[in-house]
This record gives sequence, C-alpha cells and structure tokens, in this order.
Amino acid sequence: MRSWLADFGQRAYTTVERTALDRLDGWECEAGTGNLRHHSGKFFQIQGLEVHAPGGPVEQWHQPIIRQPEVGILGILVKEFDGIPYLLMQAKVEPGNRNGLQLAPTVQATRSNYLRVHGGRPVPYLDYFRQLTGRRVIADVRQSEQGSWFLGKRNRNMVVEVADEVEVLDGFRWFTLGQVHRLLAADDVINMDARTVLSCLPYTGGELAGALGAHGYQDGAGDADGDADGFRASLVRSCAADQARHSTAEILSWITDTRALSELHTRSVPLDAVTGWRRTDGGISHESGNFFRVMGVTVTAGGREVAQWSQPMIEPCGTGVIAFVVRRFAGVLHVLVRIRAEPGFVDVAELGPTVQCTPQSYARLPRPRLLDVVLEAAPEQIRFDTMLSEEGGRFYHALNRYLIVEAEVEEDSPEFRWLTLSQLSALLRHSNYLNVQARSLVACLHSLSGQHPQH
Amino acid sequence: MRSWLADFGQRAYTTVERTALDRLDGWECEAGTGNLRHHSGKFFQIQGLEVHAPGGPVEQWHQPIIRQPEVGILGILVKEFDGIPYLLMQAKVEPGNRNGLQLAPTVQATRSNYLRVHGGRPVPYLDYFRQLTGRRVIADVRQSEQGSWFLGKRNRNMVVEVADEVEVLDGFRWFTLGQVHRLLAADDVINMDARTVLSCLPYTGGELAGALGAHGYQDGAGDADGDADGFRASLVRSCAADQARHSTAEILSWITDTRALSELHTRSVPLDAVTGWRRTDGGISHESGNFFRVMGVTVTAGGREVAQWSQPMIEPCGTGVIAFVVRRFAGVLHVLVRIRAEPGFVDVAELGPTVQCTPQSYARLPRPRLLDVVLEAAPEQIRFDTMLSEEGGRFYHALNRYLIVEAEVEEDSPEFRWLTLSQLSALLRHSNYLNVQARSLVACLHSLSGQHPQH
Repeated sequence: MRSWLADFGQRAYTTVERTALDRLDGWECEAGTGNLRHHSGKFFQIQGLEVHAPGGPVEQWHQPIIRQPEVGILGILVKEFDGIPYLLMQAKVEPGNRNGLQLAPTVQATRSNYLRVHGGRPVPYLDYFRQLTGRRVIADVRQSEQGSWFLGKRNRNMVVEVADEVEVLDGFRWFTLGQVHRLLAADDVINMDARTVLSCLPYTGGELAGALGAHGYQDGAGDADGDADGFRASLVRSCAADQARHSTAEILSWITDTRALSELHTRSVPLDAVTGWRRTDGGISHESGNFFRVMGVTVTAGGREVAQWSQPMIEPCGTGVIAFVVRRFAGVLHVLVRIRAEPGFVDVAELGPTVQCTPQSYARLPRPRLLDVVLEAAPEQIRFDTMLSEEGGRFYHALNRYLIVEAEVEEDSPEFRWLTLSQLSALLRHSNYLNVQARSLVACLHSLSGQHPQH
Repeated sequence: MRSWLADFGQRAYTTVERTALDRLDGWECEAGTGNLRHHSGKFFQIQGLEVHAPGGPVEQWHQPIIRQPEVGILGILVKEFDGIPYLLMQAKVEPGNRNGLQLAPTVQATRSNYLRVHGGRPVPYLDYFRQLTGRRVIADVRQSEQGSWFLGKRNRNMVVEVADEVEVLDGFRWFTLGQVHRLLAADDVINMDARTVLSCLPYTGGELAGALGAHGYQDGAGDADGDADGFRASLVRSCAADQARHSTAEILSWITDTRALSELHTRSVPLDAVTGWRRTDGGISHESGNFFRVMGVTVTAGGREVAQWSQPMIEPCGTGVIAFVVRRFAGVLHVLVRIRAEPGFVDVAELGPTVQCTPQSYARLPRPRLLDVVLEAAPEQIRFDTMLSEEGGRFYHALNRYLIVEAEVEEDSPEFRWLTLSQLSALLRHSNYLNVQARSLVACLHSLSGQHPQH
C-alpha cells in the first residue's frame, strides 16, 4: 500500500512556492476592509474576528479567520468484495502537506469544487454522494472544522455503500478498514478529511447491522491476555458499553448547560482592523510570533483539478499536542473529553480532546491542564503517538502530535467528563458535538481495537 | 383544577391596553435603524430581516423580526408522591393571552428575567434548574421557537426531578401528567412553554427507567377494542417502535441533505428599511393586511414580576392551522413531518408539522400541501382538535387550531417523511430538530395514548 502511494506520488508532480499575499493570482484585498477574497467571490475569504471570552486565559483578542460558509462533501465509498467491506481511498496531493501526498476520502470537495466554479474537471465519484436514492447511507452528518481558524465551517461527512460495479480510477484504491487503521499509525499518511469521516463510522448499535459491523469490531473481550490485550478488550467493551460513568442524559445536560451559559462572543471586523497582527514578509503575523501566519502559495500540480493556482493559507507557528487521556473504569475504557468554546463554532462549544494546544503559545499563560501528564507519560502509558496533518488545502504544514495516553487522573474540573466510545459514537451521528481534533482521535482510538475486518 | 385556575385568575388582576409603538414607556427607536429597543439594551429588539428563498412560493421578502439572543429557561419540576410523579405547574398571566391566565411550567424565565435586569422579584424555584448537582435531570435541551417571528431564539427546556420537600407557593400546584394531558384537550389552557417542555419528556428507552416511565406509558396494545383503542394501541407501539418506515440513519441523512442544500439566506436590515410594510395606527403592518402586525401594549398586572410595563408584541393576522397527519403502518402509528426552512432558525431547517400555515395568507399563493386533507377530514379521522395559543409574552392573541388527523395519504414529496414517536423522541434529546409547532403536536399526541399515570 505504501509503495502504491509512493508510486502515485512520483507521477503526481506538484510544486508549492511561497508567494506574497499581494501577489496571489486571482486574489484581491477587498476595498474598505482589506479582506482577502478571490475575484470570483467564491472559494473562501480571510477576514478579521474580534473575540470576547470573559473568564478565559485571554479575555479579548483579534485574529484573522477563514470564512467559507459553503458545506462541502467528504465521502467514503464502501463496497463488499467476498463479504468483506472495502473503502475506496484516494491518493491526494495538497499544497499544505509537508510530504505532498496523503490518503484521502473517495470524495473531498468544496461546494465550489463540485459545482466547478473554477472550471476544473468533474469530481470523480461525486454522484454516489449526491444521488442517494437506492444506496445505503451508513453515515451522513455535517461536522465542524478547526474553530480557531474557520468561521462557521462545516463539511458533510458521508459513508455510502454501493452494490454496483465501481470503476477504479488512477489514484484510487480499495482498502480494508484494517489496512487504513494500520496506515493511521504512520506519520502523515491518512489525511484529516479521511480521519473525520472514519470517526463517523457507526461501530456499534443496531443500525450497523450490515457491512461494517459483521466484519468489523466484534467483542474481543474474551481474548484478554497481557496489558495490550487488556487495553484492547476495554476498548471493545467501551464501543458497546452500557456501563458508562455518566448517563447520556447527564452528558447532554452538561453540554446544554455549558452552551447556555457560555459568554464567548464574536464579531466580524475588517482584516485591516485586526489589532496585534502585522503585515510582514508578504504575510500576516501576530506580534508575539505565536499562533499562526496568513501566507500565500502558488501551486503547480499534475494530479489536481487545475494545473496552476494561487491561494492564501494558514501556517501554524509550532507543532501542536492533541491528546486523549483514557482510563479504565470497571474494565470499560473511558475517554476524558474537555468541552471547549472556539470562536468559529456554529454552536458555542463542542467536545474536544483532553489536551489541545500548541505548547509554545503558552510561554506567558497558565499551562493547559493535563498537558504535562500527557508529555511526561511513561512509554507503557502511551497507546498512540503519531504526527498527523490538518487539512492540506487550507493549512500549510499544520502538524500535530496526536497522542492517546492511559492515566489514572481525576475528572476534577467542570469542563471535563469521562465518556465511553459508545457515547461518543452516538453523539457523532449529530452535528457539532465533537470537534475535528477529537474526531481524529476517535478514529485513532478505533484503530487500536485490533479487531480488523476478516480476510 | 379548572376551578383552581379560575380562582387564581380572579386574584391575578391584569389589564392590557393597546399602546402606539412610539408611546411605549422604556422603549425607543434606535437612531439610524429605527429598530425598536428597550432603553436598557436588554429584553429583546425588533429589527428588520431580508430573506431570499429561491424556489419557494415567495422568493424574496422583508419582514420585522424579534431578536432575543439570550437563552431563557423553561423548566418543569417533578416530584414523586406515593410513587406517582407530579409536575409543578404555574398559573401564569401573560399579556398576549386572550384569556389572561394559562398553565405554565414551574419556571418560565428569560435570562433578563432571572438575572433581574428589570429589578423585579426573584424567579421562584429557579435554583432547582441552575444548581443541578445531585438532582436527576430528565430533560435538558435548547429548542428553537417560532422561526418566522424570532431570529435565532432558543430556550432551554428542562425537566428536573427533586427528592427534597418543595414548598408550594401561591399560583403553583402539583399535577399528574394525566391531569395535564386532560387539560391539553381544552382550548387555551396549557401554554406554549408548557407544551414544548412536555414534548421533551422521554417516553421510551432505557434512560427513562425511573419516575415517569414506571407510571407513564406502558404498552397498552393488548386492550385494543374498537377504533379508539386501536388508535391508542398504535400510538403506544409508536413510542417503542423498532418497526419504523425509515431507519434513523435514513432520517438523519435526509435532514443533513436538506440542510446542506437549502438556499435560504437571510440578512439583517434596519427596521426602517423593511419594504412592503408600513407604520399605521401606532403599529407596523404588511401592505397586504396578511402575516402579522407589530403592535404595543401597556400591562398592569398583580401577579407578575413588576406591576406595570410596556412592550411591543407581534399580533398575527388570522388564525393558523397546525396539524399532524398520522397513519398506521403495520399497526404502528407514524407521523408525517415536513422539513421546513424558516428564516429565524439557527440551523437552516427543522422538522415541522404536516401542515403549518395561516390559510388567509394564501389567497394569492399556491395552497399549502395537505391543508385540504386536514380541513376536510371526517369527524372520525380527527383525533385532536383544540385552539391553543403561542407564547403570551411576545405574541398577542396568537391562536392556532391544533389538529391531529388520521388519513391514508402518501409521502409523495421530498419534504415529507413518516416518523414514529420513538424517532421523534430520540431527536428531541438534541437541539433544533423539531420546531415549536411540531413539539406542541408531539405533546398533544402523547396526551392521546390514554396511558395516564396510575393513581
């Protein structure tokens, strides 16, 4: 599989050159606001945002933010061969990827993309996700993306099963879920869009019944033997768990309470008016050198919709740490989630990882809770530890260290709750409960159950 | 119970006088926009909204709309006496009620109310809904209100069970769910806020376990005898149904699809700039005489937080029809819901009644689908038929005829789907799936099961 990716990478020739924001072909600064926009008015804009967060570590700030109100499609096609479900994955080159090529969903298209605003080629396999009559829809839910970088962004995460013959185009290949899970353990191979769609797969419950369930994650609790097996068994139990620390009614009430009482307020401001940021070296940076830069690239690509284009991107300053702390209660694995208000969220607050931060930004701020528990974990506590990228179409070299750490910590603050994977999966059927970083970690956690599709 | 209400009504002296908008004490027209606002900046505003609905019966219009971004609390306190759960209900006078007094939840308070912005008395029983630690939260979910009259309004619908002694204040009384259900069949007694909270009660599933379930709605399918019993049996089955016409995955995908593809766009405009509306007789009316008027009232009340106040209100033109068409499939009652985009919704579209309209507004427009099926139903098809009011704190004499009609119609349009009550209850655990009119009808439908709490 790796060699197939490498081979395609050879042929999918791409170069990415840094380009000053005022020299991006097709992009302009809107008169009066300085907002960065495409001359067609499509794709996305970069504007300013004023945020008030009374009681937070920083109570008020300005920042640039991407505005892309369209709902795109991230879709994985599933088909059974000899009774085993396969996922159709795409080798995709994106300008923000450090390594160029990553494994993406079957379809990964903005609305502008699939309506062909830019006059590119049609999006392959799109019809499977737009003509749903007669197909089996396994998942179909709009989910948020980075709430610190996107204003109100949502993509439609879809998994659709087909029975008909499917032609496999160049750059596409069928993978079992087990194969995808093994690749998830490698640095920078499975892209963010694939991870978020994978997180929406229903691992439990009656609705699964068919394809993925039968060959997916049966109860493996019986074969517990040694620490790794014990962990896996607790994970498998967590997917089906009735024995959760908190009832679902309690969890929903906690979320409602946080959302109803949160005081996070935001207001759009012109990009020219964001205080604390300055135009420098062809980009826009924060005075502190922290957070992120707005920068531009010019892309020359072989394997993408159009041969050459320019665009602004967000380039984070520093590598982030995104971690779930997990713990077994009565043999059932629980995940410590933290409820977070991010300025770009559509509905105030979502459940995020236990830890989600860029440590270098906290030099002069209180250290994020449990960051040290995660960074100082002993090797035997670390269940997952991989460098993964955020969306390569908008974010330039946005690498985060994704960790799953087992630790006997307490839930001693109102922002934290222990949830089972079964409870997380139930929430993932609906929009805006889990943020994109938590969804990536849910996909990573599922990959550890060791219950791969049978061959 | 009726006499207790009547008795309280005698003592809760209130007068409501129509008052021109420019003579409302404490209210002003904002300079530059004409938006109606309270001088404190609190409570709510009336502003303008421009709506684009390509493909709809009217593709573009302006209208006044209420902006009240705060999340208030609508809460019912539950307590068991001798093993039977009782709901603490409040006799509440509100200026928009045609009959003055209606039965309301234990707490019905805007955020301004309970933070006492206007310096009124503290809201009784509020602490039960703000200090949740150690209480049993049966329901806690933010739900939308009228999307044609409110911009982005949500209230927190709560049901909380207490074990401690509760002092019953004047104007409050414990009712069984059965008593509340019988009052729901009477015109204009159970107010909208009570109805929406009642709709969020979990009628089925494991989470119910305790109080309401054990004394609520057991399977009554065995006693089917005659048409009414057959209907009740199909309703009880619908609350527990696994045999739904569409899987929950299909329903969620249909909602996601509609929300992702909807083209309803709105933009705030100054109230002074709404075209098609004119200031007349101290209010604001549409040129056609349809839809609604913005008007003002001055209230002198004995039983409310302050003795006298003025406020703008919305007064609908004509009486609306709000109806569920229901049908039995394999002995399981299904409800025909229609997905609707309303300009004030937070998330594009919600599930509404089969029919929701004011017939007189459609004189020159295509007749709403299934309106005639509902209006021409034979007496034996009509399972529920009661005049009920919308929120008496914002809407003046806003009466609708609520109907539940059994009819063998087909689901022959993409906006319609048949759902079981079990599916509707599962959606009601989350925000923004059912609009407030559909929630009222869900409460009415539950009242027909004939399975009252045991005495």
